[in-house]
Amino acid sequence: MTESDLPVTDFHPYRWGDPARRTTLPAAAKETLAAFGVRTPEHEPVDLAGLTLPEPGFDLAPLAAVVGAEHLSAAAADRIAHTRGWSTPDLLKLRAGDLTDAPDAVACPGSHQEVVDLLAACERLAVAVVPYSGGTSVVGGLAPDRAGFAGLLALDLRRLDALIALDTVSRTATLGAGMRGVEAERLLREQGLTLGHFPQSYEGASIGGYAAARSAGQSSAGYGRFDDMVVGLELATPRGTVSLGSAPKSAAGPDLRQLVLGSEGVLGVITAVTVRVRRAPDTRVFEAWRFEDFEAGAAALRGLAQDGPLPTVLRLSDEAETSVNLADPAAMFAGGPGGCLAVTGYEGTAAEVAARRAGATELLTAAGGQPLGEEPGESWRHGRFKAPYLRDPLLDEGVLIETLETVTFWSGLHELRAAVVKALTDALTAQGTPPLVLCHISHVYETGASLYFTVACAQTDDPVAQWQQAKQAANEAIRSCGAAITHHHGVGTDHRAPYAEEVGPLAIEALRAVKQVLDPAGILNPGVLFESGR
Amino acid sequence: MTESDLPVTDFHPYRWGDPARRTTLPAAAKETLAAFGVRTPEHEPVDLAGLTLPEPGFDLAPLAAVVGAEHLSAAAADRIAHTRGWSTPDLLKLRAGDLTDAPDAVACPGSHQEVVDLLAACERLAVAVVPYSGGTSVVGGLAPDRAGFAGLLALDLRRLDALIALDTVSRTATLGAGMRGVEAERLLREQGLTLGHFPQSYEGASIGGYAAARSAGQSSAGYGRFDDMVVGLELATPRGTVSLGSAPKSAAGPDLRQLVLGSEGVLGVITAVTVRVRRAPDTRVFEAWRFEDFEAGAAALRGLAQDGPLPTVLRLSDEAETSVNLADPAAMFAGGPGGCLAVTGYEGTAAEVAARRAGATELLTAAGGQPLGEEPGESWRHGRFKAPYLRDPLLDEGVLIETLETVTFWSGLHELRAAVVKALTDALTAQGTPPLVLCHISHVYETGASLYFTVACAQTDDPVAQWQQAKQAANEAIRSCGAAITHHHGVGTDHRAPYAEEVGPLAIEALRAVKQVLDPAGILNPGVLFESGR
Repeated sequence: MTESDLPVTDFHPYRWGDPARRTTLPAAAKETLAAFGVRTPEHEPVDLAGLTLPEPGFDLAPLAAVVGAEHLSAAAADRIAHTRGWSTPDLLKLRAGDLTDAPDAVACPGSHQEVVDLLAACERLAVAVVPYSGGTSVVGGLAPDRAGFAGLLALDLRRLDALIALDTVSRTATLGAGMRGVEAERLLREQGLTLGHFPQSYEGASIGGYAAARSAGQSSAGYGRFDDMVVGLELATPRGTVSLGSAPKSAAGPDLRQLVLGSEGVLGVITAVTVRVRRAPDTRVFEAWRFEDFEAGAAALRGLAQDGPLPTVLRLSDEAETSVNLADPAAMFAGGPGGCLAVTGYEGTAAEVAARRAGATELLTAAGGQPLGEEPGESWRHGRFKAPYLRDPLLDEGVLIETLETVTFWSGLHELRAAVVKALTDALTAQGTPPLVLCHISHVYETGASLYFTVACAQTDDPVAQWQQAKQAANEAIRSCGAAITHHHGVGTDHRAPYAEEVGPLAIEALRAVKQVLDPAGILNPGVLFESGR
Repeated sequence: MTESDLPVTDFHPYRWGDPARRTTLPAAAKETLAAFGVRTPEHEPVDLAGLTLPEPGFDLAPLAAVVGAEHLSAAAADRIAHTRGWSTPDLLKLRAGDLTDAPDAVACPGSHQEVVDLLAACERLAVAVVPYSGGTSVVGGLAPDRAGFAGLLALDLRRLDALIALDTVSRTATLGAGMRGVEAERLLREQGLTLGHFPQSYEGASIGGYAAARSAGQSSAGYGRFDDMVVGLELATPRGTVSLGSAPKSAAGPDLRQLVLGSEGVLGVITAVTVRVRRAPDTRVFEAWRFEDFEAGAAALRGLAQDGPLPTVLRLSDEAETSVNLADPAAMFAGGPGGCLAVTGYEGTAAEVAARRAGATELLTAAGGQPLGEEPGESWRHGRFKAPYLRDPLLDEGVLIETLETVTFWSGLHELRAAVVKALTDALTAQGTPPLVLCHISHVYETGASLYFTVACAQTDDPVAQWQQAKQAANEAIRSCGAAITHHHGVGTDHRAPYAEEVGPLAIEALRAVKQVLDPAGILNPGVLFESGR
């Protein structure tokens, strides 16, 4: 399947994606894992259907009065389905039956005004609110700190899923925040258009989440990050509505859209987003290249980013990731071409693709790249949404597997990669579980690039604590290199402390002051981005 | 002269630019003006050298202690040279000898820390501060509201003019905020690099002003707006320092750089800016095209912006501007090719220029463009910094001439242009001074474009009030079309009211809250961007 014909799927609380596409581990992978000391956990995951939850500690009637009783639920299944996100610790907690972060109820408002009214009602009830869109946060963004509140409401935006407006002259589309990325792409393709946004969470994530968490997709080289695409936003707050976006760009003060983008639900609930759309490509070529080592490959990517032409998709795996080949479960651990694999993808008209491909081929060849042809490129393209499906069987087998990411300027990239690999390796080895640490570049800019790490090792008896220790070490390495604590996963609750260090106390104080204006009672995602202060 | 060999010039308080490049009006222009009822003003401009100013009403010693007595001045000439900016009302007021907005003193700190210390000292003295960089504001950004303060200090950043760091791997340069654009370009060219930022104010403007006011240059299609170039900022505030920019882009919360960009000195003083730089072009081609009418030309520009390839420079004059030919004083009012003139400029390597030019030529031809060759394109390029020099002799002759600009989405562009032309024409005709209204597109985006208007008519006896009335009508037209109140001039004090309408009361309250954190006493540019509230 390709990105425009994937189905919209409601995920199982702790199993990723479309049940029909779930996967098992190849034998080669199991053998390799045994060598890492991986043992199948003693306990099967807890059966969530057998669990109960306490009754909500607040009156649901005022909320039902806003959204209608049929759009409000305190049923255990609904609350469990809105518990936390998709980080490995989130999954491990659910597997262990830990429902401490479950919301007390789930409301599905049907309009922007209902969101505004719901927030006002929650403010009166002193109920904290977690805005919920695709639910794919991997940084604890769906586990706010409800201490001091009467309870927690998950505000699920799924009913705000309309294509509200399409301006084919300006090439903008206004999309409801609850629209799934898959659905947005399908509707736009019907009009010969594309959003071009394909994050790894594509099967689950939604437009509002892309905006609130500054998503970046696999085609960011060609289509930009999601925050580059946004030209307008509707924000519902307990104090009313903020509408932003009178022009593509302007000098009318600070760009307040960029204050809402990345605000992760703490300043308000994004209910609609106006995005720039593009003509759907009619031609697509994906191919792969081999570089002798990561440094040589990174230099080639930097050349493309700085002097062009840029492919639509541009990635480079390090030696370890190249040898593991995560994108193709069938070939996983089967060995690869050695060196470092780069993938280049070109989309557009036939003439655009031909011109960009010719220019990039010239540069990649001059940079020492060895062309591997279209087959491994197409293989990556077809396999690219499969990787998240691997995590579930790996966790079943007793593997701790998780990812993290960062971004820095080109001149600091190799130091950053070495520091994070060392931090993760040292921290997990010290716990008796030496890890495999894989890394790739998947987003490039003229001045820098992201680094995405995948870590796998045997689980200890307390894999959540085991990972937290490793993650803490990685965070410290990132901070010591002066890099950003996250490239596209977001801050959530997990990155709150290093984020505060990164931007400094005055910036956090400024954000708090903005929150105080828009959400004076502090009900919106308390403890996400910064300490709730209650 | 070209953009990299213009001299750094200190402008006369009300005469633009390099004295050696000042110009006079051609005879054809004077004849045309007479037909508009233009009469030479009865009074010559007041001789500023003969004016005195009251002594500062606060103690200068604590400020001298920070910057050194030699970098602090209360001399009339220095204070007059820092009075207001370069809007036509600003010039008319100075010509009339109105020094009511003159600062009480001018301080030139020599380091970021001195700026921090100076702000702390001003806070203690209850002295308002106007950050001053190139001084080229045309929106009243240098005339804050000092009511309630002991006085006003102009904080001139000219000594912060160093190339602080150059990272040739990441292609970033860290520049002192007081560095002039001309000097930045000269220093970068020595390294084979370019910033590529050439606003109309290029001869006077500075790096800090580009950032604080979200400047856009004539090559924005190729190099982006200034806010696109910024990857890092140092902000001095009365509460200390905010350092932003750990990566090109990230998901670490809101992009706070975009909160500082466009903040026009009300949140802090930008002391250094880290910008993305590019390889200097080795090839450059400018040419011109004729379109039958503005609609046809705009459709062609939209095609280039949405489907590419984009030239480095892309502009389109409407029929009126095409006939006047502002770029070439010698040919002004001499008639032109009729229809609408577009200028396309291509810069880069020879191969890049050839490829982009071929693609753009194909699209422009298909869109009905008639190629006029390189001569008019080169003529525009060589004349492009001359237009501001025309204003002084026009004012001398009794012409009211001023510009304003806006930006909207493509689908609303023609309605916006018609509404603004009508508003200006009606408002000035009603005052007995029917105007000439010229318009061009000079900045394009995938989803929209800017409109830049030049207005000329005979001065009445009170030309400041005359213009304010016309400007008010234009603002209302812009607001009624839902467009942004400014594309690149900024908000200042002139656009404060329509800006508040544009973003709405909650957004203004949020900005005030940020200011309250960073500048609790409200000393920084009070009344710029929003009402000072004192």
